[in-house]
Amino acid sequence: MHADSSRNYPVPSVRRLPLYLRLLRELRSQGRETISCTHIAESLGLGIVQIRKDLAMTGIVGRPKVGYFVHDLINAIESFLGWTKTTDAVLVGAGSLGSAILGYDEFRSHGLRIVAAFDAAPEKIGRHVRGVKILAMGELPERVAQTGARIGIVTVPAMAAQEVAESLILAGIRAVWNFSPATLEVPARLVVENVRFVDSLAVLSQRLCQIDD
Amino acid sequence: MHADSSRNYPVPSVRRLPLYLRLLRELRSQGRETISCTHIAESLGLGIVQIRKDLAMTGIVGRPKVGYFVHDLINAIESFLGWTKTTDAVLVGAGSLGSAILGYDEFRSHGLRIVAAFDAAPEKIGRHVRGVKILAMGELPERVAQTGARIGIVTVPAMAAQEVAESLILAGIRAVWNFSPATLEVPARLVVENVRFVDSLAVLSQRLCQIDD
Repeated sequence: MHADSSRNYPVPSVRRLPLYLRLLRELRSQGRETISCTHIAESLGLGIVQIRKDLAMTGIVGRPKVGYFVHDLINAIESFLGWTKTTDAVLVGAGSLGSAILGYDEFRSHGLRIVAAFDAAPEKIGRHVRGVKILAMGELPERVAQTGARIGIVTVPAMAAQEVAESLILAGIRAVWNFSPATLEVPARLVVENVRFVDSLAVLSQRLCQIDD
Repeated sequence: MHADSSRNYPVPSVRRLPLYLRLLRELRSQGRETISCTHIAESLGLGIVQIRKDLAMTGIVGRPKVGYFVHDLINAIESFLGWTKTTDAVLVGAGSLGSAILGYDEFRSHGLRIVAAFDAAPEKIGRHVRGVKILAMGELPERVAQTGARIGIVTVPAMAAQEVAESLILAGIRAVWNFSPATLEVPARLVVENVRFVDSLAVLSQRLCQIDD
C-alpha cells in the first residue's frame, strides 16, 4: 500500500497531483468524506483510468462502491510529495519574477517556505520584498547553513543562473528550482526542476495552430 | 511528411520541442549542417527512441547515416509550433509577475510579441513597464480588435482571473495563457494553457523525497 521510493514516477502524473489535491481540499472543506473516481473525472475533465493510475502512485487504492476516503487521499498525496512537513527554501534574484514568487501565497499550503532572499545588486540589499529582507550574495552560505534550507529558487537572468546554482550547491542546497531559461549543469545527486515558460508556450502555440486549420 | 493537424499530440513531447530548438539553433550558429539522433541524445540526456518519436510529430524523418539536416529540422519544429510567424498577445495584470513576463526577451525568438498590457489599478495606468504602456481595462476590447492579438496572458491574482479571462474572450482572444493558480472555465473552442508553479513544485518535492530515502 505504500509508495515505492526507489521508482521513477512519470512526471506528467506527478504534475497532476496538485490538481487532485486542490479538488480534495475543497471537498473536505465542504464536509465530504468519500469521493468516487467518476466524480473526480467529471470535476477535472480527466479520464478514469488516468486518475486511478496517478493516484495509485501514492500507494492508495480505492474501494469498490465507495471510492476513496477524502481525508486518506489528501494524506496519501501530501505524504507522497513530502508536503506533510514544510521544506525551507532560499531565493536568489529579487527582480520582478523573484518578487512575484516571494509573494505567492499558495506555496505555504504546498509545503514550501521561503526563508531568505538574495541579490547581487547593492541597491537592493537591505530592502524588504513581500516581507522578506534582501541579503547580499556573500551571506548565502551562512544563511543556508543556519536555516537548513534545502531548496534554492533561481530567479536571475539566464547568464547568471549557472554561477548562482553553483553557489547554492556549495552552500548545501539539495534541490534547485530554476525559473531562468538557462539549462543548468549540476551534479547528479542534486534535484533540478525547471520552469521554462517557452515549453508551456510551445503547447499553447501548437494548439493555437490546430484550431486555425 | 507533414504534421497531421487533426491529431492530439502528447503534451510532454510538445513541451520538449523548445529544448531541441535551443540546441539546433546553437548548432546552426556554429555552422553545423547535420545532426544525428545519438548526438541529440548525448547533448540533452534523453533517450533516442523518445527523440525520434518527438521529432516525428513535426513530420520530419531522419536519413540513415546522415541524421537530420539542422536547417530542415529547425524549420519543421518552428512550423509545427507556428513560430515561423509572430503571434501578438496582450497581457492583463502588470504586477511583478506581469512585469517579469513583459521583460522576458526569449519570447520574441519563440513567435510571441506582447503588444499591449492592462491593469485594473488606476495608479498603474499610463506607466510604462519594460517599454510597454499600461492601459485601463476599459481599453481592452478596442486594443485587441486593433492589434488582432490572439493570445491573452493572465497574470492577475487567482480571484480576478476568471473575470479577466472572460473579458479577453469577449474581446476576441483565441488562447489564454494562464499564470494564475485559478482553474479557468472557458468555452471549448478556446485554448487554455496553464503555468501552475505548484505543479512544478510537486515534481521537485517528490524527487527531493526520493533522494532522502
